[in-house]
Amino acid sequence: MASIDKPDPEVPTKLVASEGAPPLPPPPAPPCKVDYFAVDVALRVWLFAAAVTSVVVMVTSEETEVVPVPGVPNHILPLPAKFNHSPAFIYFVAALSVAGLYSIITALASISVLLKPDFSKTFLLHFAFLDLLMLGVVASAVGAAGAVGYIGLKGNSHVGWSKECSVYKKFCTHVGSSIAVALFAAVLLVLLSMLSISSLHRRIRD
Amino acid sequence: MASIDKPDPEVPTKLVASEGAPPLPPPPAPPCKVDYFAVDVALRVWLFAAAVTSVVVMVTSEETEVVPVPGVPNHILPLPAKFNHSPAFIYFVAALSVAGLYSIITALASISVLLKPDFSKTFLLHFAFLDLLMLGVVASAVGAAGAVGYIGLKGNSHVGWSKECSVYKKFCTHVGSSIAVALFAAVLLVLLSMLSISSLHRRIRD
Repeated sequence: MASIDKPDPEVPTKLVASEGAPPLPPPPAPPCKVDYFAVDVALRVWLFAAAVTSVVVMVTSEETEVVPVPGVPNHILPLPAKFNHSPAFIYFVAALSVAGLYSIITALASISVLLKPDFSKTFLLHFAFLDLLMLGVVASAVGAAGAVGYIGLKGNSHVGWSKECSVYKKFCTHVGSSIAVALFAAVLLVLLSMLSISSLHRRIRD
Repeated sequence: MASIDKPDPEVPTKLVASEGAPPLPPPPAPPCKVDYFAVDVALRVWLFAAAVTSVVVMVTSEETEVVPVPGVPNHILPLPAKFNHSPAFIYFVAALSVAGLYSIITALASISVLLKPDFSKTFLLHFAFLDLLMLGVVASAVGAAGAVGYIGLKGNSHVGWSKECSVYKKFCTHVGSSIAVALFAAVLLVLLSMLSISSLHRRIRD
C-alpha cells in the first residue's frame, strides 16, 4: 500500500481522502489561454488609442499670443507656444509614440497567439518583460511632462519662473489633456503587466 | 510496493497516477528557491541603499547665494535654494522615501521566505505586482525631477525661465547626483520585477 506520511498541506489531502473511493474528482480545467489573450488584445488596442490620442493632442497644442518678450521690458510681440519648446514635451511625444508603435506590434503578436496558442508561454514572458520596460518609459515621460506643465500652470516664485497658462490657455489645456491620457496609458501598461504575471502564476497552480 | 514517505509537494498527481506503472520517470529537479530569493534580498538591500542615498543627497542640497531678487531689478539679496521650493523635488523625495521603506519591508519578507520557503509562490506574485507599482512611482519621480533639474541647468529661453545652475552650483550637483542614484534605483526595480517574472516562468517549465 502506498503510505503517505506527510501529505502536502495544500493539495494532496483530496487525493489521500479519495484513495478508497472509486469516483476520482475531475482533473482541473486546462488554463484558459483564449480568455487571457483576448483581454490582452483589448487592452493593447486601448493602449494604442490612448498613446495616439496623447501624441496628437500634444502635437496640435500650438498657440500664438501677443505677449511681452521675455527679457526685453516694454516690448510685445506675437509669440507662439509649441510643445517642442520644452525638451520634456519632446521626450513625452517620443515616448508615447514608441508606446503606440509597441502596442500595435504586441497586439498583432497577441492575435497570432490567439490563432496558434503553441508559443503562449514564451509570449507571456516576453510581454511581461517588455510591458515592464514600456511602463518605465511612459511613467517617466508622464512625470517629466507633468512637472514642466505644473511650472507652466503655477510658475515658481522662488526662482522667478513665470506661469504661462494665464496667457496660453489653449496650449495648457492641450498639454494637460495629453498628460491625463498618457497617465491612463501608463495605468493600462500596469494592467497589462499584471495580466501577464497573474497568467504565469495561474499556470503554476494548474 | 512503492512507498513514498515525503512526496514532492508540487507533483503529487503524477506520483499517484503512476502507482501501477513499474518504470517511474525521474522526478524533475525542484525549483531553485534559495538562489532566487538570495539574489532578491541582495537587490533589495541595494535598492534600500540607493533610495536612502538619493533622499539624503536631495535633502542636503540647500545652498544660499547672493543673487538678484527675481522680479525686482537692481536688488540683490542672499537667497537660499532648497529642494522644497519645487513640488517636483518634494514628490521625488516622497517617492524615494516610500521606495526605501518598501525595500526594507520586502527584504524582510524575502528573508522570511528564505528561512521558510512554503509560501514562496504567493510571495513571488505579490513581489512582482508591488515591484511593478513601485517602478511606476520611482520612474515618474525621476522623470519629474529630471525635467525640473534640466530647466534649472539649461533654462528655457522661449518662456523666459532663467537657468539657476550657474549660480547654485552645489545645489545643482546635489540634485543631479540624487537623480542619477534614483535612476539606478529604478533600474534595480526593473531587475527585481524581471527576477520575479522569470522565476514564475521557470516554475512552469519545471
